[in-house]
Amino acid sequence: MSGWVVVAGLGPGAEDLVTPEVRAALAQATDIVGYIPYVARIAPREGLTLHASDNRVELERAHHALQMAAQGKRVVIVSSGDPGVFAMASALFERLEEIPEFAHIDIRILPGITAMLAAAARVGAPLGHDFCAINLSDNLKPFDLVEHRLRHGARGDFAMAFYNPRSKSRPHQFARVLEVLREECEPTRLIVFARAVSTPEEMVTVVTLDQATPEMADMRTVVIVGNSTTRRVGAWVYTPRSAPDGGATS
Amino acid sequence: MSGWVVVAGLGPGAEDLVTPEVRAALAQATDIVGYIPYVARIAPREGLTLHASDNRVELERAHHALQMAAQGKRVVIVSSGDPGVFAMASALFERLEEIPEFAHIDIRILPGITAMLAAAARVGAPLGHDFCAINLSDNLKPFDLVEHRLRHGARGDFAMAFYNPRSKSRPHQFARVLEVLREECEPTRLIVFARAVSTPEEMVTVVTLDQATPEMADMRTVVIVGNSTTRRVGAWVYTPRSAPDGGATS
Repeated sequence: MSGWVVVAGLGPGAEDLVTPEVRAALAQATDIVGYIPYVARIAPREGLTLHASDNRVELERAHHALQMAAQGKRVVIVSSGDPGVFAMASALFERLEEIPEFAHIDIRILPGITAMLAAAARVGAPLGHDFCAINLSDNLKPFDLVEHRLRHGARGDFAMAFYNPRSKSRPHQFARVLEVLREECEPTRLIVFARAVSTPEEMVTVVTLDQATPEMADMRTVVIVGNSTTRRVGAWVYTPRSAPDGGATS
Repeated sequence: MSGWVVVAGLGPGAEDLVTPEVRAALAQATDIVGYIPYVARIAPREGLTLHASDNRVELERAHHALQMAAQGKRVVIVSSGDPGVFAMASALFERLEEIPEFAHIDIRILPGITAMLAAAARVGAPLGHDFCAINLSDNLKPFDLVEHRLRHGARGDFAMAFYNPRSKSRPHQFARVLEVLREECEPTRLIVFARAVSTPEEMVTVVTLDQATPEMADMRTVVIVGNSTTRRVGAWVYTPRSAPDGGATS
């Protein structure tokens, strides 16, 4: 029996946003590996072992998955959203690079509905034109780089989606992010705070930049900042497909 | 009977990448509206009318959908990938804004697996760090703005995904895009050309920037440009989660 590792995206929370491709991999698995709340989404069954681990142990988790696959197990590493967007896929390849004897292992990455697209769909189409996605956490990069990318995103007039905007261990950085946005964008710029989209705890708020406060975000929130043309129609927020001439000003 | 409009993402092509949420909406629909190749993916059944239309008539298509919903029909507008990423959701809201009598219509946007995330999963995790998505078509925006955003994307050291890189009507622009990238990035920068991912015509090529030619892309291709740290491990391409200090250089 030859083992494998699948890194699967479970989507933002609702079960009807899990793709059939991911369901099929879960049905074939002998072992599920992942962060506690994601593994909690998998129904126990005979022949399936659940290995839940804490946050910030991504490399150890990847190693464990590769090791079990080398022993013939069929392992699914579960990620929230899409596994390639600020999630487990990169951690797996980092570990694969470090341990040459894992090189032969059969690996597949299965995409999922990432949080920013679920959030965008809920409010309309704020990412309907060019956009960027930035992880605001400085766990693995200097905060200077976050600020640098924020400014380029704003000056390029991209809509922007922010992952991990705020956590208990870094309560002040999102306030700084709002300061940078106020330097770069007009006060009426639309901002969407989308918390836990597609779960029972879903909460979505749309404000203008001058109304935004750091407390509007927590670690389960995706923040979407519109571009200069993003507007409301009724209760919806959308970015038109067309950009006027002269949009390239800085 | 009250009508509705759903804008649904069918994902990049494979049927097992269509979410159950989208399947359920398709099962309830009386009418399907969309671009010819996307409507062709919907199985005919009794009680369901298929309305396929040509490219570049997005606003007329949106109007038709809203009009039918106003008459009590249950209409699904089908998009490839995710409907909010360079697809039909924005067109729907543009039309909604123009025609106030459609304001009361029940609308839902259902996310899908967008092409760049399916392509990224196929090659590894090239979008595993901050990234941006740019529609290279200048049908609805000046090409200057494309170039402006390219430079900000590169200077922010974002990985970048390009939609609609090249078509018969604008064969020269992608050559210009490669020129701009060569001005902004090192020659060994990794580029992924991912054509028709998850379909029988899938073809994925990974090259370095100095090897890239305009002919590597066509209208069914998504192009992913790594950031300065994107690397290979075996046959995979991935972007590490961490960025070194000093990444913010321009």
